[in-house]
Amino acid sequence: MILSPGATVGVLGGGQLGRMLAMAALKIGLRCHIYAPEAEAPAYDAAHARTVAPYEDEAALRRFADACDLVTFEFENVPTATLEFLQTLKPVRPNPRALALTQDRLTEKTFLRGLGLETAPFADVADPAGLVRAVRDLGRPAILKTRRFGYDGKGQTMIREGSDLGAAHLALGGGPMLLEGFVAFEREVSVIAARSLEGAIASFDLCENEHERHILARTRVPARTSPALAPVAREIAEKVLAGLDYVGVIGVEMFVARAAGGAERLIVNEIAPRVHNSGHWTIEGAETSQFEQHMRAIAGWPLGSTTRRGAIEMRNLIGEEADDWRDILAEPDMSLHLYGKQDARPGRKMGHVTRVLRPPEA
Amino acid sequence: MILSPGATVGVLGGGQLGRMLAMAALKIGLRCHIYAPEAEAPAYDAAHARTVAPYEDEAALRRFADACDLVTFEFENVPTATLEFLQTLKPVRPNPRALALTQDRLTEKTFLRGLGLETAPFADVADPAGLVRAVRDLGRPAILKTRRFGYDGKGQTMIREGSDLGAAHLALGGGPMLLEGFVAFEREVSVIAARSLEGAIASFDLCENEHERHILARTRVPARTSPALAPVAREIAEKVLAGLDYVGVIGVEMFVARAAGGAERLIVNEIAPRVHNSGHWTIEGAETSQFEQHMRAIAGWPLGSTTRRGAIEMRNLIGEEADDWRDILAEPDMSLHLYGKQDARPGRKMGHVTRVLRPPEA
Repeated sequence: MILSPGATVGVLGGGQLGRMLAMAALKIGLRCHIYAPEAEAPAYDAAHARTVAPYEDEAALRRFADACDLVTFEFENVPTATLEFLQTLKPVRPNPRALALTQDRLTEKTFLRGLGLETAPFADVADPAGLVRAVRDLGRPAILKTRRFGYDGKGQTMIREGSDLGAAHLALGGGPMLLEGFVAFEREVSVIAARSLEGAIASFDLCENEHERHILARTRVPARTSPALAPVAREIAEKVLAGLDYVGVIGVEMFVARAAGGAERLIVNEIAPRVHNSGHWTIEGAETSQFEQHMRAIAGWPLGSTTRRGAIEMRNLIGEEADDWRDILAEPDMSLHLYGKQDARPGRKMGHVTRVLRPPEA
Repeated sequence: MILSPGATVGVLGGGQLGRMLAMAALKIGLRCHIYAPEAEAPAYDAAHARTVAPYEDEAALRRFADACDLVTFEFENVPTATLEFLQTLKPVRPNPRALALTQDRLTEKTFLRGLGLETAPFADVADPAGLVRAVRDLGRPAILKTRRFGYDGKGQTMIREGSDLGAAHLALGGGPMLLEGFVAFEREVSVIAARSLEGAIASFDLCENEHERHILARTRVPARTSPALAPVAREIAEKVLAGLDYVGVIGVEMFVARAAGGAERLIVNEIAPRVHNSGHWTIEGAETSQFEQHMRAIAGWPLGSTTRRGAIEMRNLIGEEADDWRDILAEPDMSLHLYGKQDARPGRKMGHVTRVLRPPEA
C-alpha cells in the first residue's frame, strides 16, 4: 500500500522523535496522528491529531487505526501486542517483528549473531545461579542488563571485581537478564539507514558518537575512523535491514575495537528500530533528513539522497544546557532545535544544536 | 517584550506562509496559534491551536489574544482594524502601520517616493474622469490597479491603445484606483530581509523572479544582475525596513530597468509586509530560513545567519503541477514541499520545489 499526499500516518509515541517525524510529514504534505499515553508530549504540537490513551486500550487503538492510513512508531517500548493488534487493522511499518526482536536484548544479539555479525560476548541470565555461571564464563568486568526496557543506560549495571552478584541481580529487578562481556572499544559509531518498500537501501554517512552518563552527548560526521571502515559499517546496516525485512529508518550502534593485528573491527552493540538521536544532524547536514526519509520509506515513496553537506557536529542539550538557547541563537553557524519540553529535568533531552562546517563557496 | 521558548505566537492567516511559520516555530520551541476564517487551512496542521472566526469577531479576537504572547500575520489583507484592536491587548509585530501602508497601493508608492526611492510613475484615480486625466499624463500602455486587495495579478488590468477606459474602470469595481505608467524592465528581483527588535537588519541574497500569469513561477539566487546591483537592492530594503520601524521579515519586489546610459537601475514595485514566496528557497538554501528569521525577529531574539549554501532554483507547484510529486521525490537534488491543500485548482499554489546546487565537497 502506497500513500498519497494528504494521507495520515499514525505514530505511536509522543517524544521529540515523533515531533520531528511530524514536522517532516508536514513538509511533504502528509499528516501525523500521534498516539501516546502522556497528557503533554512534544509531538502533539506538530500533529494533525492526537490520541491520549494507554497502549493497551483496544477501543482507542481501533479509533486511532480508523483515523490513519498506516501506522509507525517512534518509541521502542511500545508493547508488541499493540502493534500486532493494529496490524490487523492497518499496515504497520516497520513490521512489528523488528520491534519485538530489538525489545529483547537476548533475541536481538542472537539475531545479530545469526547474520554472522560480531557482538559483545553474552550469556543468558535466568536467575541468580545463572548470573554466577555467566560471570565465570565471561569474566569481570561485565555488564548485567535487563533483557527488556533499557535505554539511555537504564536497566543495566556494571559487574566489577568485588561486585555482589546477588545484590546486582536484585537491583535490576530479578527478571530475565543477560550478561555482556566487557568490550574495550576505541569509539562508538552508528549507521542511520533506510530501506524502502521495494527493498532499496540508503545509508547516511558513518556517525561518531560520544556518550556522557550513558546519554548521547555529541555526534560527529564523518567518524574519525579509517576510510575503509565506513563501507563495512554500511554493509552491516544493510544486512540488518534485509534480515528484518525492514521498511523505514533504523539506527545501528556499533563499537570500533582493535583486532589482535591492530586493524579496526566493528562490534554491533544495539539496533534502534526507529529514527535515531545520532541522525538528528541530517536535518541540516544531509540532502534528506532521517525524518523525511522514514516518512518516504513507510509511505512507499522513493528514498531521498543521503548526500552530506559538510563536516557536522551535533550536540544534545540535556537538562539545563538548554538554558543557553539565546547564546546558541547568536552563533551564526549553529542551528538550534528545542523540543517544547517545559521541565528541564537533569538527563532530559531538551533540544539539540547542529553545526555544519560547509566547504567554501565555489 | 522578549519571548521565551514555549511562548505562543498568534498568526493571523492560515495559508502556506502560516504553515511554514508554524513549522519554523516548532523547530525553535515556540508554539503557533493560527487565526483564520477558513474551516480548512494549510497552517492548522502545524499549529498548536487554531481559532476559526472572521477577522471582525471581537470576542474571538479577544480570546485569541488571551491565548497568545504576541501576534503576527501572514496574510496582507487582514483588516487594519483587527490589528489595531489586537494591539490594545498584546504586542503586534510587525506594527499595524506597516500593514496599513502596504494595503493601499497609493500610500505605499507615496511612502516609497518619500524615502527617495524610484517607483513606476503613478497617478491617483478617484473616478472615471480621473482615469482619463491619468492616461493623458502617463500615456499608454499603463496598468490600472485597485488601491486595495490586490495580489497575484488580481485587481489590475492593462490599459492599451484602444482600451475602453470606462469599461476598464467598471471592470475593477469602480472604487479607488491608481494608474501606473508602464515600466520596461529586464527582470524582476526581490530582497527578503529582516529587522530585529533592536533594529539590526539581515538580508538574504538578491532573488530573481519569473512570473507566469501574474503568479510567481520561479526564483533563482543569485539574481543574474551585475554584482554592483545587489548591495543597492539591499540598501533599498534597509531603507524600507527602517522607514516602517519594522520588526520581522519583509519582501521588497523591484524591477531591474536600464537607465538612459545603459546602467541597471532599480524600480521598487511592491512591499510585502510578511514572509514572501520568493524567500522559500531559504529553507534549504540559507543558514536560517526566512520563517525562522521572522520568528526570531518578532520574538526579540538575535537574527540568524543569511549565508547562502549554493546556487538556488525554487519552483512553485501551481495547480496540477503538484501531481508530479512522485517524480520530484525521485530527483536526488530536489526538495519537495507540499502544503496539504486537497483541491488542486488552477492557479493555486500547492507546493514548491527547491534545488540547491552546492559547491563540491572540500
